Amino acid sequence: MNFQISGTYTDLYQIVMGQAYFLDGTYKMPVIFDYYFRKIPFNNGYVVFAGLDDVLEILESLRFTPGDIDYLADQGISADYLEILRNFRFRGSIYAPREGDLIFPSAPVLRVEGTMLEAQLVETLLLNLLNFQSLIATKAARIRSVAGDSVLSDFGMRRAQGFGAISASRAAVIGGFDSTSNVYAAEKYGLKSEGTMAHSFIQLYDDELTAFRKFAEARPKNSIFLVDTYNTLRSGLPNAIKVAKEMEERGERLQGIRLDSGDLSFLAGRARTMLDKEGLEYVKIAASNQLDEYIVRSLRQQNAPIDIYGVGTNLITGHPDGALDGVYKLVAADGMPRIKVSDNIYKVTLPGKKQVHRLLNKDGSFFGADAVSLWDEDTPARIFHPHEAHKTMDCTGIDSEPLLKPVMKNGEFINRIESVTQIKSYAAQRLSMLPAEYKRFENPHVYKVGISEGVKTMRDDLLAKHSL
Amino acid sequence: MNFQISGTYTDLYQIVMGQAYFLDGTYKMPVIFDYYFRKIPFNNGYVVFAGLDDVLEILESLRFTPGDIDYLADQGISADYLEILRNFRFRGSIYAPREGDLIFPSAPVLRVEGTMLEAQLVETLLLNLLNFQSLIATKAARIRSVAGDSVLSDFGMRRAQGFGAISASRAAVIGGFDSTSNVYAAEKYGLKSEGTMAHSFIQLYDDELTAFRKFAEARPKNSIFLVDTYNTLRSGLPNAIKVAKEMEERGERLQGIRLDSGDLSFLAGRARTMLDKEGLEYVKIAASNQLDEYIVRSLRQQNAPIDIYGVGTNLITGHPDGALDGVYKLVAADGMPRIKVSDNIYKVTLPGKKQVHRLLNKDGSFFGADAVSLWDEDTPARIFHPHEAHKTMDCTGIDSEPLLKPVMKNGEFINRIESVTQIKSYAAQRLSMLPAEYKRFENPHVYKVGISEGVKTMRDDLLAKHSL
Repeated sequence: MNFQISGTYTDLYQIVMGQAYFLDGTYKMPVIFDYYFRKIPFNNGYVVFAGLDDVLEILESLRFTPGDIDYLADQGISADYLEILRNFRFRGSIYAPREGDLIFPSAPVLRVEGTMLEAQLVETLLLNLLNFQSLIATKAARIRSVAGDSVLSDFGMRRAQGFGAISASRAAVIGGFDSTSNVYAAEKYGLKSEGTMAHSFIQLYDDELTAFRKFAEARPKNSIFLVDTYNTLRSGLPNAIKVAKEMEERGERLQGIRLDSGDLSFLAGRARTMLDKEGLEYVKIAASNQLDEYIVRSLRQQNAPIDIYGVGTNLITGHPDGALDGVYKLVAADGMPRIKVSDNIYKVTLPGKKQVHRLLNKDGSFFGADAVSLWDEDTPARIFHPHEAHKTMDCTGIDSEPLLKPVMKNGEFINRIESVTQIKSYAAQRLSMLPAEYKRFENPHVYKVGISEGVKTMRDDLLAKHSL
Repeated sequence: MNFQISGTYTDLYQIVMGQAYFLDGTYKMPVIFDYYFRKIPFNNGYVVFAGLDDVLEILESLRFTPGDIDYLADQGISADYLEILRNFRFRGSIYAPREGDLIFPSAPVLRVEGTMLEAQLVETLLLNLLNFQSLIATKAARIRSVAGDSVLSDFGMRRAQGFGAISASRAAVIGGFDSTSNVYAAEKYGLKSEGTMAHSFIQLYDDELTAFRKFAEARPKNSIFLVDTYNTLRSGLPNAIKVAKEMEERGERLQGIRLDSGDLSFLAGRARTMLDKEGLEYVKIAASNQLDEYIVRSLRQQNAPIDIYGVGTNLITGHPDGALDGVYKLVAADGMPRIKVSDNIYKVTLPGKKQVHRLLNKDGSFFGADAVSLWDEDTPARIFHPHEAHKTMDCTGIDSEPLLKPVMKNGEFINRIESVTQIKSYAAQRLSMLPAEYKRFENPHVYKVGISEGVKTMRDDLLAKHSL
């Protein structure tokens, strides 16, 4: 089955609204949209920004296929507007942080500048990929944060949300995983792929010992034996040890054993003792079975001698939240700022073309606040709480760096895609700059986002204009 | 961007195990695997089986591409085994219920018969699609069960788990949704697509009234106005009514208005009154904003006059569970039954080639139990609780129908793919045969799955053989 991500990878209303813009000529109007989110998932203190390079790659080649055009004609979309779609190319410009950076609620994460039609048509694609990959990269970063130097491998493909598996394995590596079982994603994105063996392999042979021997023959350098098919301590481990010794005689080394059920801490401890007693200190212990950041943390607090964690469902579906609530809002049209009003002040948008400044401590670590200014404003000397007028902060003398940089210009990449490994390194580097209190699981410190005088005045003026 | 689902859409260990099977010749051994699940998500009383036709369509054309082969060679997979993969075709046979049927824990849902290599290589693909689509179809069925005849539309694409959106919208319709905003899925699967308008449309124009007029010009037959951009009751509705009356003068009819924030029950009631007072009884009211089956139920219990529900995140991600725990286990090899042992009796597999009989009441409704027998056994006269030996049930005189029927023979479809609409109808028909107590949200009645004398004896004999 072939999936070509085309212009129809969008919500119908984007195409419908485009028809109205086409009719009155506003489809060519220059506009600005901001992508941002409101709530951090998992009660976490940060979100890892992921999905950007995938979005840019798709945008660069996005087309409506002849089949798409025929389909839309059947849906009653008018022929003259379809001619526009037939020739559609995304020629907009995009500003964003580097993929892998940390992002926080309310501040703009990404800005699209383009015509009304193109900015609107790509909304759904952009939300779909950025929301999901950022969710999974964040989940992966949480697991990495408690896993020390252990190897983390994504085993989630079978429980992933269909073809979401493709992006999820990529995002898991960005967030700090070492490898994935997903061969398709590994091939596509240059990830390290890793695999052990299934219970079916053991079951196929008359006995476990034979199964291990057969596997070792096929994989003399990187065999990991699954030891819990019959009985971990009485059968799996003794048989694994026996084959490991046979491998030693051939000058080979068993890579590891895997525990997939039972009390992982207890079994890992017993397995380590049994292996070490036989001089098999080099044999690694892998563990899997419904792991998440809390279980990995608990296992490590118990000093369970586990070297490799295989994490499946909870990683790959971003359990328990399952979604990042990112939105995409019009902030300027035809050179004029625009606002979306709401009874809920937290849902009022920040109008205009903006920059985000990350405040930095003298040692280069993150100060704990981002300042949102107008694009042509100086780095703000004072910032205001976006919603509580009495809270302000003096920023004079605090270092900062601008976050939003051009990543696509008139529909073309500014820099070619980074490797996922590079993005992963950048995420780790940025995470190392975020103080520990923002990274703890329980009530993490709240990273602040403030707005400049210029943004505040523009918003309040527009709000006043629209108040009824 | 192009996605070709190829042989590498699998876990690495499938390919690695295949290499061992190739080395010792077992790759050609005839085997049987069962797909089944252990736990129903959402504390629901049933699961709607979905994803089958997608799986069969992919299997029929599944290949390793030349690029895949090169990639695997780089990963150290041996050249002689890669020749086998280069020529790989799935030539197995599959038995399953019709897509859209109801399925229950522990009973086999689908059986794959083939060579060890082919049955193993397709495991991940099959789990990935069946687990996810069945999850979403079940979530959709829950929402449908409390929505009466209201229109249900999937609005979830922007919060879907990446390309999982493609399968999710299909599964939502199977479970009882009427339409989707996802144009890509609508085009691919022949679903009805539906769309309203976004806040950005209103924001683009100087005022809301102009925006509504522009939209009505472009969509004289099916305009739904979003009325909450500024103030629902003081601005959105009066403007919508004004344009609706203008449309009437042109012989057109406004299709509806959409509420996307605030107290949906209160606002819908007020909106209905305001519309009706102006003779606009025909204008529908659509509602969206973080809906799920509990909120839809509550809105309907309050008699909120909502005609169309747009459901997003909670539907499309299968929140809060996010995954169905389906597994795929070897149950026979080379004509002999196989078992997977576990300390946890609930994880011991049912060996052998089996049939599932759905017990039926005299009126054709579901009796409330499935009986699992050996394939060549008669319909069982007595069934046993799979894990609690003292519980048995006499089935004499109870009607039944076999569930597992051939759907793929030697790699080829037996019947061409049904339309999603047909599958949806079948799901609705099967749901209507399930008594109400299995469909309630709170502590639904537990549907029973029993095993025949033949299955029980085979399992217990194999268990005894493997006990240490």
